[in-house]
Amino acid sequence: MRAVELIRKKRDGLELTREEIAFLIRGYCSDEIPPYQISAFLMATFFRGMTEPEVVELTTEMRRSGVEVDLSDLPGRKVDKHSTGGVGDKTSLIVAPVVAAAGVKVPMISGRALGHTGGTLDKLESIPGFNVKLSPARFKEMLGSIGVSLIGQTENLVPADRRMYALRDVTATVECHALIAASIMSKKLAEGIDGLVLDVKTGSGAFMKKQEEAEKLAEVMVGIGRACGKKVVALITDMNQPLGDYAGNSLEVIESLEILKGRGARDLDALCEILSAHCLLLGEAVATLEDGRKLYREMIGSGKALAKFREIIRQQEGNPGVVDDYSFLPQARYQGMLPSPVRGYLQSMDTEKLGLALSVLGAGRETLDSEIDPAVGICFHKKIGDPIESGEALCTIYYSEESKYLEARGRLDQAYAFSSAAVERPALVKNVIDC
Amino acid sequence: MRAVELIRKKRDGLELTREEIAFLIRGYCSDEIPPYQISAFLMATFFRGMTEPEVVELTTEMRRSGVEVDLSDLPGRKVDKHSTGGVGDKTSLIVAPVVAAAGVKVPMISGRALGHTGGTLDKLESIPGFNVKLSPARFKEMLGSIGVSLIGQTENLVPADRRMYALRDVTATVECHALIAASIMSKKLAEGIDGLVLDVKTGSGAFMKKQEEAEKLAEVMVGIGRACGKKVVALITDMNQPLGDYAGNSLEVIESLEILKGRGARDLDALCEILSAHCLLLGEAVATLEDGRKLYREMIGSGKALAKFREIIRQQEGNPGVVDDYSFLPQARYQGMLPSPVRGYLQSMDTEKLGLALSVLGAGRETLDSEIDPAVGICFHKKIGDPIESGEALCTIYYSEESKYLEARGRLDQAYAFSSAAVERPALVKNVIDC
Repeated sequence: MRAVELIRKKRDGLELTREEIAFLIRGYCSDEIPPYQISAFLMATFFRGMTEPEVVELTTEMRRSGVEVDLSDLPGRKVDKHSTGGVGDKTSLIVAPVVAAAGVKVPMISGRALGHTGGTLDKLESIPGFNVKLSPARFKEMLGSIGVSLIGQTENLVPADRRMYALRDVTATVECHALIAASIMSKKLAEGIDGLVLDVKTGSGAFMKKQEEAEKLAEVMVGIGRACGKKVVALITDMNQPLGDYAGNSLEVIESLEILKGRGARDLDALCEILSAHCLLLGEAVATLEDGRKLYREMIGSGKALAKFREIIRQQEGNPGVVDDYSFLPQARYQGMLPSPVRGYLQSMDTEKLGLALSVLGAGRETLDSEIDPAVGICFHKKIGDPIESGEALCTIYYSEESKYLEARGRLDQAYAFSSAAVERPALVKNVIDC
Repeated sequence: MRAVELIRKKRDGLELTREEIAFLIRGYCSDEIPPYQISAFLMATFFRGMTEPEVVELTTEMRRSGVEVDLSDLPGRKVDKHSTGGVGDKTSLIVAPVVAAAGVKVPMISGRALGHTGGTLDKLESIPGFNVKLSPARFKEMLGSIGVSLIGQTENLVPADRRMYALRDVTATVECHALIAASIMSKKLAEGIDGLVLDVKTGSGAFMKKQEEAEKLAEVMVGIGRACGKKVVALITDMNQPLGDYAGNSLEVIESLEILKGRGARDLDALCEILSAHCLLLGEAVATLEDGRKLYREMIGSGKALAKFREIIRQQEGNPGVVDDYSFLPQARYQGMLPSPVRGYLQSMDTEKLGLALSVLGAGRETLDSEIDPAVGICFHKKIGDPIESGEALCTIYYSEESKYLEARGRLDQAYAFSSAAVERPALVKNVIDC
């Protein structure tokens, strides 16, 4: 088998066999196939796509490239939730303790902020002492003792994905359904889960701006899950505006704690409820989605979910005091207010621009080496459809450096659009795709 | 400027600026842009193509990557002829001495056999002692003294093309009009020529199987020439069967000498006549194509072209005795005959298969490192449209090794197709494309 022939095959729109996909991935990981052949293959894949058998094989081969987590000796169902990324998306911090409090194990391996999107690991690390770099053994131990652990990807979990992603990032081959799906699913399937709830974001702040694109991606991922014998459900959810009222690492921890205390933004709570309900259903803790919703409310109302989060913090070496006293979290030195230039209704928010403004403030990263400032962020006072008075605050900016504030504010200014007529609020869940 | 942004731009079908093309080519040649980014760019170019300004800039940038030949201080017009490659195509060995004998300078830098096609350098090297590796100074000296020189590409002539071609070869990005055109034209324009006659082959033995594909490539190359202020004309010619009666290095030298002596195959002579006429027209030796044809016949009839070829051999350290005594050329040890299995007419020849059979015999190369056997080859007794008796010889195979003979014969067997009804002979020149 020769790599150039396989590149040509993909280039010409033919289907590769399992052996051919395996040859490419193994060859790349063992340095037998050079990066310039793989990048040509990736670009050909960008244009030609992959069939379901191809993407399943790609996922399986990537998954096999490292050490998989084996949770088969732990009793009970293991379920994870994964989001494709957005602004203000802190659902993991709420769904994980809720689902674990209800008795379903949650082995959650999360990512970091990149570009305009936030990352669960960065949010958790704003809690003083919180350690996301647990060993696989300690991860498994926590799952055994408290039923949940929230960590980052270890070096030997799906190394093929790390190599492929680094190459895609510099060769403009990131935006490809098959490659995105294989990247996400290889990591999730290597976690040793039984079920997976995917939150596929769509809208101005998502990677998939169009709903059909998000649905296509969701279908590929659900197809991979089905082919690998796992229960996978995907929710297509709105990312035309930030989720909840806050974005920024400390601020999002606070907002998550508020939800766990039965308070906090309605949209965030509603999404956590439906995501948790699906997790509980896949985890066989309930028989219907309606029962799942009830169990979510019960875990919040009884304080069990909040207790579980406190336990997670304690077990992962963080200061559990933050749960009761938010002043233990990093605080931004300054605040600035962005006033509305007009009277009317908030029509739209370019949420990618909002995310980049957050990144400029220091809440996100331009590259994987950028430093995060956990204290900075934005509180969004107005959402799409809200009536606004001229001069009224659209948002409050929490910042540490004047120059970054001014740049971020400039970007925020351009992200809002207004209407004189009433505007419909976007639906939160747009579609559900399952096996 | 960032390479990844330029890859994305090409991927998304946008036009790159001159500066952006220059950035990529210079970056690649100076090792500042890694091969994996260039190969992704090449694959995106395969799918998206290039606009005329892009391909002109690519050609210009590649041409500038090395040392160009400067012939401006040599008096007279300088014209070259280039073929896109085929089987039995020895026109360079005839056109170069004819055109030089008529007083137009011919600075010809040629290539080697690769895949199923033959190469001028390999043919010339079957003449004992013939040296195709002259220094640029010696090349220019020969052009001054006898008006013609036939050499190979030097190390510092268009190094960007060598690098790009090596990468394209292993990333399945060879078959792309823009990249083929830029590769050919950058080398030809770096020769210091005033005019160029392109012989763009089409048919079963050409890289471009379809005439429209050949025409598209020709148009791109003629467009580059126009943009660079050079006179370029492209002839679209038939490669549905070998050109002339012989293929194989020594055998093709003999056939070329026969043409120069006023004998030899009619199709080969006819194509050399029209190619030479165009060269003479571009070289301003004649005012009309008809006069060019007459001058060709005159150069052959008077023996001046043959004398010029003898002079070329002598100046390039070869044995000029081969002109009068073909036994100075390498001779194959054995001959085998392939009989026709049927009575009827020869309908078609899969000329790529014929070329690969030649390659198997040792006349061509699988890779650039393969060894050439100058003695082996094939004499084609029948051409498309010829009537054949059952058992009559289709071709004679000149070989050195039994095992190679058997493999080549197996391939030849599959290359012929027959018809019981009369078959039309293909036209030799299908189209002419000029500025």
